Amino acid sequence: MNHQKLDVAVLGATGAVGQRFVQLLENHPWFRVAEVIGSSRTAGRPYGEAANWVLDGGPPDSVAGLTVKALEDNFTSPLIFSALPKEAAETREFELASAGHVVCTNASANRMVEDVPLLLPEANADHARLIEIQRRKRGWTTGAIIANSNCTAMPVVMALAPLRQFGVNKVFIVSAQAVSGAGYPGVASLDILDNIIPYVSGDEDKLETETLRMLGELNGDHVLWLNAAVSASCNRVPVVDGHLVTVSVELEARPAMDELIAAWAAFRGPQPVPQLPSAPEQPVQYLPQIDRPQTRRDRNAGNGMATSVGRLRECPILGYKFAALSHNTIRGAAGGSILNAELLAATGYLGDFQPMLAVQNAV
Amino acid sequence: MNHQKLDVAVLGATGAVGQRFVQLLENHPWFRVAEVIGSSRTAGRPYGEAANWVLDGGPPDSVAGLTVKALEDNFTSPLIFSALPKEAAETREFELASAGHVVCTNASANRMVEDVPLLLPEANADHARLIEIQRRKRGWTTGAIIANSNCTAMPVVMALAPLRQFGVNKVFIVSAQAVSGAGYPGVASLDILDNIIPYVSGDEDKLETETLRMLGELNGDHVLWLNAAVSASCNRVPVVDGHLVTVSVELEARPAMDELIAAWAAFRGPQPVPQLPSAPEQPVQYLPQIDRPQTRRDRNAGNGMATSVGRLRECPILGYKFAALSHNTIRGAAGGSILNAELLAATGYLGDFQPMLAVQNAV
Amino acid sequence: MNHQKLDVAVLGATGAVGQRFVQLLENHPWFRVAEVIGSSRTAGRPYGEAANWVLDGGPPDSVAGLTVKALEDNFTSPLIFSALPKEAAETREFELASAGHVVCTNASANRMVEDVPLLLPEANADHARLIEIQRRKRGWTTGAIIANSNCTAMPVVMALAPLRQFGVNKVFIVSAQAVSGAGYPGVASLDILDNIIPYVSGDEDKLETETLRMLGELNGDHVLWLNAAVSASCNRVPVVDGHLVTVSVELEARPAMDELIAAWAAFRGPQPVPQLPSAPEQPVQYLPQIDRPQTRRDRNAGNGMATSVGRLRECPILGYKFAALSHNTIRGAAGGSILNAELLAATGYLGDFQPMLAVQNAV
Amino acid sequence: MNHQKLDVAVLGATGAVGQRFVQLLENHPWFRVAEVIGSSRTAGRPYGEAANWVLDGGPPDSVAGLTVKALEDNFTSPLIFSALPKEAAETREFELASAGHVVCTNASANRMVEDVPLLLPEANADHARLIEIQRRKRGWTTGAIIANSNCTAMPVVMALAPLRQFGVNKVFIVSAQAVSGAGYPGVASLDILDNIIPYVSGDEDKLETETLRMLGELNGDHVLWLNAAVSASCNRVPVVDGHLVTVSVELEARPAMDELIAAWAAFRGPQPVPQLPSAPEQPVQYLPQIDRPQTRRDRNAGNGMATSVGRLRECPILGYKFAALSHNTIRGAAGGSILNAELLAATGYLGDFQPMLAVQNAV
Repeated sequence: MNHQKLDVAVLGATGAVGQRFVQLLENHPWFRVAEVIGSSRTAGRPYGEAANWVLDGGPPDSVAGLTVKALEDNFTSPLIFSALPKEAAETREFELASAGHVVCTNASANRMVEDVPLLLPEANADHARLIEIQRRKRGWTTGAIIANSNCTAMPVVMALAPLRQFGVNKVFIVSAQAVSGAGYPGVASLDILDNIIPYVSGDEDKLETETLRMLGELNGDHVLWLNAAVSASCNRVPVVDGHLVTVSVELEARPAMDELIAAWAAFRGPQPVPQLPSAPEQPVQYLPQIDRPQTRRDRNAGNGMATSVGRLRECPILGYKFAALSHNTIRGAAGGSILNAELLAATGYLGDFQPMLAVQNAV
Repeated sequence: MNHQKLDVAVLGATGAVGQRFVQLLENHPWFRVAEVIGSSRTAGRPYGEAANWVLDGGPPDSVAGLTVKALEDNFTSPLIFSALPKEAAETREFELASAGHVVCTNASANRMVEDVPLLLPEANADHARLIEIQRRKRGWTTGAIIANSNCTAMPVVMALAPLRQFGVNKVFIVSAQAVSGAGYPGVASLDILDNIIPYVSGDEDKLETETLRMLGELNGDHVLWLNAAVSASCNRVPVVDGHLVTVSVELEARPAMDELIAAWAAFRGPQPVPQLPSAPEQPVQYLPQIDRPQTRRDRNAGNGMATSVGRLRECPILGYKFAALSHNTIRGAAGGSILNAELLAATGYLGDFQPMLAVQNAV
Repeated sequence: MNHQKLDVAVLGATGAVGQRFVQLLENHPWFRVAEVIGSSRTAGRPYGEAANWVLDGGPPDSVAGLTVKALEDNFTSPLIFSALPKEAAETREFELASAGHVVCTNASANRMVEDVPLLLPEANADHARLIEIQRRKRGWTTGAIIANSNCTAMPVVMALAPLRQFGVNKVFIVSAQAVSGAGYPGVASLDILDNIIPYVSGDEDKLETETLRMLGELNGDHVLWLNAAVSASCNRVPVVDGHLVTVSVELEARPAMDELIAAWAAFRGPQPVPQLPSAPEQPVQYLPQIDRPQTRRDRNAGNGMATSVGRLRECPILGYKFAALSHNTIRGAAGGSILNAELLAATGYLGDFQPMLAVQNAV
Repeated sequence: MNHQKLDVAVLGATGAVGQRFVQLLENHPWFRVAEVIGSSRTAGRPYGEAANWVLDGGPPDSVAGLTVKALEDNFTSPLIFSALPKEAAETREFELASAGHVVCTNASANRMVEDVPLLLPEANADHARLIEIQRRKRGWTTGAIIANSNCTAMPVVMALAPLRQFGVNKVFIVSAQAVSGAGYPGVASLDILDNIIPYVSGDEDKLETETLRMLGELNGDHVLWLNAAVSASCNRVPVVDGHLVTVSVELEARPAMDELIAAWAAFRGPQPVPQLPSAPEQPVQYLPQIDRPQTRRDRNAGNGMATSVGRLRECPILGYKFAALSHNTIRGAAGGSILNAELLAATGYLGDFQPMLAVQNAV
């Protein structure tokens, strides 16, 4: 390993997803949190005081002492993680990319911009090449914007990517989403204790579009979306973390059930994805028990970076149905963005920063 | 009203659904709990002591003092409500019907027996005429068995019954089911706090079959099932009461969204159903808010006897999607069985017992 | 009954407690909601749209169509219920009383003002006579301010009032408080799912002072506080409604355990309290089961107006310990304030409005 | 380190606490699970099948393949951890100790036997010397029984141990206990969702006695209990893991608040406790935030082995009050028992097994 870690900045660092970035980057082998950026209300204060820490324990000592910067400030870190709200993200992320920063964003604002890669490395690492289009088209040399997906689309894409070989035609999705997906303060406890809410603002649209873009093929300067119909219904449920999706899918090739299980078991991202430090050893684990995956018991699989799939059985309408689960604020948000940045670092998009790949994670 | 209430017995009276029968029958205008039947462990003890009351408050005074009888005893009540477990129900319910009792059962054991009506009065009151087949075929004169459906199939049937006029072809169902659906002690708290379990033993099969039988047409001596494909996925969620279903449906006639809402609003059971004392004034209420029905806030609509529907919108795969909710231990279990018995009483199947119809509930 | 109901206004009507006022006043035999007052954001809109209804079901039709007024407006209703936040309540409630309205407030702002009665009718109905001091001192003729207590002090006072005869010396209180006590949006779900928070802002102070004032004796123009030491520790817990308190108490007279139970059973408010329409038949019910009262199962006792007590046993330090429970947004807030207003109406403090007492509630 | 790990057996290995033993012992530097013992129902089956795994993920591969033994079998492991139910533990643990095994038990059956050490190493490591009494008195050479305490007494003792220097006179305890404390299936979800139960069978007695024994002084052949009055009230709350206690304490020396905080911060077990592999670096951490410790956010402090204390403030009755929290199935059960075994290993009570102490944990 080179002995110098790369400085990174975290936008929206005091919010719930921002805190997850800070937590996951503690002791990261390649990256070091050098700048934390908050709202005008928190700017100028020590991070440890300004952030109302909502995760377990408290903020890492190494970050607690940093002074929170304002979004309008200039930053020195080549790599920026963004946990900004949508509105704040929309233009500021482009300004920072234009100023030479590589911005890995969890915000939804720019996910569907044609030259912004919507990355899930195991599924579409090659989409990262849109960065070249982006730079050429926009006249950037070192800057870039890369997005990770909606936290509910994420487990769907991870479960379907290994099935693309069978021809995905139609996809039915019903979600059971954790409250942490709404940030902090997010969902009021009076709205969710002993309750299910059959609505999550904006997420059904995202599932019906981001899923197809992520599963699509890079075709020159843009992504050809997967040609499939997706129907999504989203529910908010009283769990802390973990988005569970009930999926039915129609597969052109009508494979046997065993073939799906084998496809999931064999699924690995292309090199160098398996060697990235945050990559789970097995991206998709199929659980044979009749009542798994379960949100609380399986959300931390692969340190929260793996997707658990189970209950594969025949669907009388579309042919196949199963359940899939991912940790929504780790793989579905901050952890996913960090893995994206690792891919960029390992493939030369982060200037001359040359990380050492984690051979122990290689297949 | 005739001044004499009809004596009823409750089988499985000490269990969770049995308690709901006892609770709902307190102050019933037609029926009076005269006998409570428990397990061999509880037989001989006063009900108030034998029943570990799991509902709010405590057992009604009028029943607390009754001595629990054993399942093998003879009973004097013409009408029997059964909250027996499946295995206990299977033969004992037939013995009691054969002995002249009308048995309204919540057990799943005999629901799919061809001459047993699976009743949801607003949707298929005419199925009650199977009792005549039953009596003729089995040589019974006063006895009968009538079942109510699975507690998750119930809201699906209630929401689809008004749509039969449009031609129901395919139905997609994903449930979020309350823990009370599993009885007591039922689901362990370690299994469901901060957790979703994507499996409810046996319920997917029941949804894929009972739904079609209930929505079917009486054809001579049996029910012609609705000719439609149903795909069901069941989830257990951390709520106390209320089963929420996410439904997509393909309708032959491709009606406008407004027509569905109008169909739900106009839906009433055939006479005398709207006049029965437990019948909700409006069996299906459509909620216009974007985030309703919600489990805790809507489960008690119509005293727990109405079904709430909401979020009607286009489904990219089947055309229509919506959410529906019912109280699983009231309308989906004990309350449903009581309404069935009211229908039988009002239509002459309970011997010479002649109840006075509640005119105030008439349309 | 006189055929004319008294018009009432509800301040803070769109908030969580305001909604409870509106809900409980539907079909009230004496009072009729004529005016609903909200924030500047909601003023001018129909209540049904302006209020984000957080209780079960929806707002009553009779109120949904009222236009929300602003706090600065003039009101015509002689009786005003206040669910204002503390800051808004502080001066506006006095202005309204000064303008001739009787203000029954749930806000904490003015509870400890020396001439404002802090009423819990079964425990201290005679404190209402402070209204005469108030009017004389402030030059009011028809106006008045009357407060109900903190929602956690309420069950403590109700459980201790029958024990005052034994001489209350020391009181130890640890609470388990529902999220609805914090209003809406109140407690974030991320803060309370699978969590206990050992802190409720301001409530320990209120318990250690309001309890003593409510249990005190009216002495001329002020209340002599009960001379006892109170230690309170407050916890927020993941339940929707119901505040449970664990109490230890030192009693001067060292009565037998049976005497306490008898005192609770015999406890009734002075006339005319038992005849007020919202008064529970039995203000304090002692539950003999070893594991009661329980929050969900007992909070609705007496339509949410009764206090449930249980688990009386020896305390090695103070002599006696027990658990007590009340519904925090019914008896502990809106319902308590309505009962206070009923007492005022029945004792001539509401001008010439003469309600008919509910004889069926008399002892 | 010696290269040979010590074989250990786990009694009651398929239950909830048994599973926690198996989970925590995976990759333990000194111990290796060699035998798993279950009920007659599970004996003979592979552990991975026989155990209905209720913790996150699944059983470790190294144990999943072991065949479950019956309680009547003979065991070869010198060290035995017992997660037996009370009744099963009572005589079998003595038989096994008599047969030469060192039995570290989580069962309550033998905790108060006069020559059985009730160990919490940071607080009373010297109580381990009762083993010598035990062996002498009972004629054992290598066998022994050592107990860890009740899971709710544990955080109380840990918080009070550093305060013994000030003279502990009276202790008031009210608990909020997680459902995992009741094992599996344990608490029914219908009993605890949206509910608080003010009763935990047997725990108040244990708190009022075990606490005093653990805080007592070894005096020759027995422990002189701490001479203090303890009053405990126990509540079951809807959280998965973590027991929170609200404590008031009277201290003879009336120290300043700062002195308590300093005492907690400085508190360390005697040598070699800090060097034991499972010992938390800081046994008691004082949290300065006004609303901590919180169950979900602090239960995993020190890998679930540390106790978190907060909210120290004046108690109007006893002088001092605070909140304390520990993970009930880690430090309060399996993890506590493992730490006890580590202490025995390091101090020569496990025959000639000589572990290498973890110097990095030394102060």
